[in-house]
Amino acid sequence: MRFTKGHGTGNDFVIIEDLDGTAELTPAQVAALCDRRFGIGGDGVLRVQRSTDPAAEFFMDYWNSDGSLSEMCGNGVRVFARYLHTRGLAGDVIPVSTRGGLRTAYVEGDWIRVDMAAPTILGESTAIVDGVEHRGLGVSMGNPHLVCDVDADTLATVDLSRAPKTDAGMFPASVNVEFSLKLADDHRRMRVYERGSGETMSCGTGATAVGVAALYTSGRSTGTVTVDVPGGRLAVTLDAHTSWLAGPAVLTYTGDIPL
Amino acid sequence: MRFTKGHGTGNDFVIIEDLDGTAELTPAQVAALCDRRFGIGGDGVLRVQRSTDPAAEFFMDYWNSDGSLSEMCGNGVRVFARYLHTRGLAGDVIPVSTRGGLRTAYVEGDWIRVDMAAPTILGESTAIVDGVEHRGLGVSMGNPHLVCDVDADTLATVDLSRAPKTDAGMFPASVNVEFSLKLADDHRRMRVYERGSGETMSCGTGATAVGVAALYTSGRSTGTVTVDVPGGRLAVTLDAHTSWLAGPAVLTYTGDIPL
Repeated sequence: MRFTKGHGTGNDFVIIEDLDGTAELTPAQVAALCDRRFGIGGDGVLRVQRSTDPAAEFFMDYWNSDGSLSEMCGNGVRVFARYLHTRGLAGDVIPVSTRGGLRTAYVEGDWIRVDMAAPTILGESTAIVDGVEHRGLGVSMGNPHLVCDVDADTLATVDLSRAPKTDAGMFPASVNVEFSLKLADDHRRMRVYERGSGETMSCGTGATAVGVAALYTSGRSTGTVTVDVPGGRLAVTLDAHTSWLAGPAVLTYTGDIPL
Repeated sequence: MRFTKGHGTGNDFVIIEDLDGTAELTPAQVAALCDRRFGIGGDGVLRVQRSTDPAAEFFMDYWNSDGSLSEMCGNGVRVFARYLHTRGLAGDVIPVSTRGGLRTAYVEGDWIRVDMAAPTILGESTAIVDGVEHRGLGVSMGNPHLVCDVDADTLATVDLSRAPKTDAGMFPASVNVEFSLKLADDHRRMRVYERGSGETMSCGTGATAVGVAALYTSGRSTGTVTVDVPGGRLAVTLDAHTSWLAGPAVLTYTGDIPL
């Protein structure tokens, strides 16, 4: 089976083109492909299929590395769009059908921008790490986030090898927790604990939530915030209609693997 | 650049064929290739070159994932031999020149056996983890090992996220530490802390040291011991002349990456 490997700020994916819908893919196969030593390695698989939605030519069939299905992935859509654009399958404006709804990606040179839909502010809550309580702002990007402002020392040292304790009343299905350091009015540095995955190099919805929270807590309803994740730099924009995630999306190599 | 990915019990390598010796490879390139998210990912790079040693047709140019050079790697030689055999470059008996000297690999179906040279027993020492002292036997396989016999509970729970404390007088350049559980007279299960790498799925010289220590502590100078590492099963044999490491060696996929 032919594949392409790509990443967005270190969030990496195995891309399989299956326009005719003939490739059989099982959860066990996905988990084997995503194994970093016995397989190819990746945070997930992006299968490129033709869409049945008339608004989009392509459907992003997104699988998590454990073989489960997922609705959406902000960095995944950006890498998916890079693949379509590089292969000549799409132009600079690329509507993508996902299980989480239609998303449109815009190719802007080395960067790709994607419409992440309008966020919802959920209100304040807390995350507890090693007995220390961190106050944060809940933000829904379709999935729930808790953005905690911290100082430089805390950002550098907070132990994310285990899940922070959060409010099960407010977040019954748990929550992704971001620790955000203010570098300037429109610049944040963050680390993230993704529920189910642990600390990661990058999280598209998490970075967007950090940008949204930065604007919200400074009383602004629109603007752009630079967000540095461990795997690189992203930019988050909030306008009157929606939120945007922009950043690099790279195809690293192509390969052949027996299935 | 064309490459092949392969592994031996989860110890994984990027294989680059460069018979004409024309590929330039820098430490920075090796580190980039071995990055598991921004590159291909691997514990090291095996460059296939023609040997200047008349006793071997091929030289294993082995690089660690950080871009440093290394003498030898037991699982690396086995994967290197699998590559030569699968590509039709060698038969079933494959002398390989390495910086650590000549090693001969034997293809035995799905398994590949490699001559690991004669071990040296170094004597007793201790490793301290979380304040608990573990007694062990020092074994040199060209590189130093300390094999500590532990019970099932210790093997399951010992924290190898940091280096065990060892005797700097006996091991001035530090030491690889193996924790070994006796499952039967000729069967061990192990975990390993590799100096410079941390806990790994497999370590060829470490598994061989565990097999050698199992035979030595039961008063035998020859025999075969099955050694289960986190990444799979290996067999270690000690005979009158040398030690042997045998186990699976698999090529997983081929690819093309821009350098």
